[in-house]
Amino acid sequence: MDAAEFRRRGKEMVDYVADYLENIEKRLVYPDVEPGYLRSLIPTEAPLEPESYEDVIKDVERVIMPGITHWHSPYFFAYFSAASSYPAMLADMLCGALGCIGFSWAASPACTELETVMLDWLGKMLQLPECFIAGTHGSGGGVIQGTASEATLMSLLAARCKAIRRVQATNSNYSESDVLGKLVAYTSEQAHSSVERAALIGGVMMKQVPADNSYAVRVDMLKKMMEEDKAAGLIPFYFCATLGTTPSCAFDRIVELGPLCNEENIWMHIDAAYAGSAFICPEFRPLLNGVEFADSFNFNPHKWLLVNFDCSAMWVKKRTDIIGAFKMEPLYLKHENQESGLITDYRHWQIPLGRRFRSLKLWFVFRLYGLQGLQAHIRKQVALAKVFESLVRADKRFEICAEVIMGLVCFRLKGSNELNQNLLKRITDSREIHLVPCQLSGRFVLRFAICARTTESSHIQQAWRHITQLTFELLQEPSH
Amino acid sequence: MDAAEFRRRGKEMVDYVADYLENIEKRLVYPDVEPGYLRSLIPTEAPLEPESYEDVIKDVERVIMPGITHWHSPYFFAYFSAASSYPAMLADMLCGALGCIGFSWAASPACTELETVMLDWLGKMLQLPECFIAGTHGSGGGVIQGTASEATLMSLLAARCKAIRRVQATNSNYSESDVLGKLVAYTSEQAHSSVERAALIGGVMMKQVPADNSYAVRVDMLKKMMEEDKAAGLIPFYFCATLGTTPSCAFDRIVELGPLCNEENIWMHIDAAYAGSAFICPEFRPLLNGVEFADSFNFNPHKWLLVNFDCSAMWVKKRTDIIGAFKMEPLYLKHENQESGLITDYRHWQIPLGRRFRSLKLWFVFRLYGLQGLQAHIRKQVALAKVFESLVRADKRFEICAEVIMGLVCFRLKGSNELNQNLLKRITDSREIHLVPCQLSGRFVLRFAICARTTESSHIQQAWRHITQLTFELLQEPSH
Ligand SMILES: Cc1ncc(COP(=O)(O)O)c(C=O)c1O
Ligand SMILES: Cc1ncc(COP(=O)(O)O)c(C=O)c1O
Repeated sequence: MDAAEFRRRGKEMVDYVADYLENIEKRLVYPDVEPGYLRSLIPTEAPLEPESYEDVIKDVERVIMPGITHWHSPYFFAYFSAASSYPAMLADMLCGALGCIGFSWAASPACTELETVMLDWLGKMLQLPECFIAGTHGSGGGVIQGTASEATLMSLLAARCKAIRRVQATNSNYSESDVLGKLVAYTSEQAHSSVERAALIGGVMMKQVPADNSYAVRVDMLKKMMEEDKAAGLIPFYFCATLGTTPSCAFDRIVELGPLCNEENIWMHIDAAYAGSAFICPEFRPLLNGVEFADSFNFNPHKWLLVNFDCSAMWVKKRTDIIGAFKMEPLYLKHENQESGLITDYRHWQIPLGRRFRSLKLWFVFRLYGLQGLQAHIRKQVALAKVFESLVRADKRFEICAEVIMGLVCFRLKGSNELNQNLLKRITDSREIHLVPCQLSGRFVLRFAICARTTESSHIQQAWRHITQLTFELLQEPSH
Repeated sequence: MDAAEFRRRGKEMVDYVADYLENIEKRLVYPDVEPGYLRSLIPTEAPLEPESYEDVIKDVERVIMPGITHWHSPYFFAYFSAASSYPAMLADMLCGALGCIGFSWAASPACTELETVMLDWLGKMLQLPECFIAGTHGSGGGVIQGTASEATLMSLLAARCKAIRRVQATNSNYSESDVLGKLVAYTSEQAHSSVERAALIGGVMMKQVPADNSYAVRVDMLKKMMEEDKAAGLIPFYFCATLGTTPSCAFDRIVELGPLCNEENIWMHIDAAYAGSAFICPEFRPLLNGVEFADSFNFNPHKWLLVNFDCSAMWVKKRTDIIGAFKMEPLYLKHENQESGLITDYRHWQIPLGRRFRSLKLWFVFRLYGLQGLQAHIRKQVALAKVFESLVRADKRFEICAEVIMGLVCFRLKGSNELNQNLLKRITDSREIHLVPCQLSGRFVLRFAICARTTESSHIQQAWRHITQLTFELLQEPSH
């Protein structure tokens, strides 16, 4: 395919994309395929000779679309939102064409520099404390990670490295693995599974801190566990707080947890993967109070800030903490400016070496929406969650299971877990709307998350009609 | 921005992309900016109100392009190639629009299933042994990782987990950290820095195996080190072989190394990040002989197979090894088909949770080039490297520093390291072509890698004229 054909096919693809998104609500949100459906629809080997573009594009509808869960359908209410916007898609096209791999400053200066400045812009939008802003000579700064999981892992590894050095400085006869065997990390029992996984990868013990009635971690619980562990000869070194937990969007009390972590020399990382975007609105910003105590903070613009996946924004207070953990300097990656102190080589900040020019997406989205446009998006989705909450509250058969603070409503039928499992199964099988469950205090709960940018009040009403219809049918059954 | 405006702007962007790539060779390949150049060109904060699209797009030339290292210029010969093709870009547009996050089968069945089948296609193109092919009930299979670094890390972590379980099964009084402290991983002294970094992340010791005169690891060296380590009470558990090392594109002798690893219960991972693509050509396939001994194998289609970054293909012989290392099952990620044995939840195979629909790029590229088209691309680039090699060999002032097997030529001026550093500095400062150095046997060597899809023989000739001109000027200087 040459440039001339790309011009033609690219424009067709732009139309295909626009058509897809404009008509997405006509598709069943959850696909009706069995595991293994796709293999039989295509050959078992790649073709020897090129096929025609027409044949390939025809297969998108025949092979791919039947197996797509339409995350951007206004009837998609599962997991958390995945961001999508036209400006981000345009930026991604440009990113693909530049195709520069930005592992070091020299590998493409613009790629590194725009990222640093965009993370400053975004940090200011969130009113992050000055210590997280890179500026021209700050000691903190931001980086784009692929996912929140990677950000958590990087923070845990940096904390591990710092802790090992600290312990060895006073106990010179301890080997690295002696220290590893004593380190303890903590996180909420409500934390995302990626947090526990980070500890597994890092080879350190992680303990789950019980949450309070509102599913938030409080300081006394963490303090008690840490005291016990220290008395047993263990070395607490890391706490991952969650702002906006995955099951119910609860907020750990970082205002009280932060000072404890600082006193005890515990690295506090904040995972605000979903909820972080909302902190650009002054009315939600108080939930971020206490971030000044954190060593690192992360959230996913690719969830709720209209920046297509992948783009997870992470800030650290001390760049040296994260860089120092893994610096490797083979000659083929060295370049003359690297010791100037002026530049950033982001490969030291992340697990992968290679990286795309993802900050272009932030730049396009910030400028084409403006801060006010982004705030409007957050506020609209929170308001839609409130609409759904009211509908649930007005129906005495249902209960709300956690305070509705952002775009997530946790609800259930009053009754057994089995009843609620049956309801969810009917919802899933109907394929008209899509939700996933969670577990809260041992109860099976339905999560209704406002996801798509195009979800309007009418879709919420329609979703509720659908749920109550299925509930009606379910409750009619003789077994209930 | 609504769909109508996206149609317009998207088509403009398609033209911008085509214009950029058609005229790329007119740009200086290496940018002329100082560290920090970008910050002063844009505001210090995001705008409150939306800006116009015209203003944003104008800034691409004003702010971004001056700081771009043009990886797809035919005069870019640095690092290794980064793949780029129009079919891959089209697939990426589609991927962005679908915007599905494919962490589990249910999160978008097509995303998981196409990936499994595309990795089978690709595995067959490489003639991988049957045990790496998923098929309908194989115990092995493939996955797309973001980067080779992540693939190496995943393999090391899976090996670590297996080794810990094995050791604990016979020494029940060993704690996990006791075992960690005894585990030893090995890799070539010529291996990519990401391999050593994987061991750092995994908290295990890694030793560098000295390479032979051709920069390849031989079995006797590894065997000797392992014997010594075992005698010292350590537990060898992992060896990462490289096929196509970063400095000189050398090939570790996996045919001899593999049987040793198998006998000793050592996980052998093969990192063929760059060179792996060439194994689709029968004439290069013998270099992959011995892969049957490997537990995992990885290479980057995003380097040399015309699939834009990111797309790193990894296969494992036993899916259970990699899945078992980190399985986490919170309720919000469970779905009804997951225990059927028919499906794959790729989140267990990788560090991140979220993942894009990257297999679309493979599908488009394989079908629109055909195997023969891809082979032609590899062969053309290897032939261009041979052209460059001949030019160097014909000039008695220069020497070739390593056998030219694929698209990389390592060469230097006969003379001091300083002389060669000076030559490289002139090349870099001229900004007309771009190379990076490496170190081989203590000598400073220039790496000339055939990178861009659009590089032709005329560009090689021109690059060589440029190098000899700078050499002439350099050697004229009184100091030499
Ligand atoms: C609180 C929280 N943390 C982490 C994650 C994982 O996000 P990612 O896919 O970016 O790793 C999620 C995903 O929903 C989340 O809700
Ligand atoms: C042999 C080898 N391994 C690994 C890598 C790292 O690749 P990635 O950026 O995909 O992690 C490279 C990059 O050049 C390489 O040459």
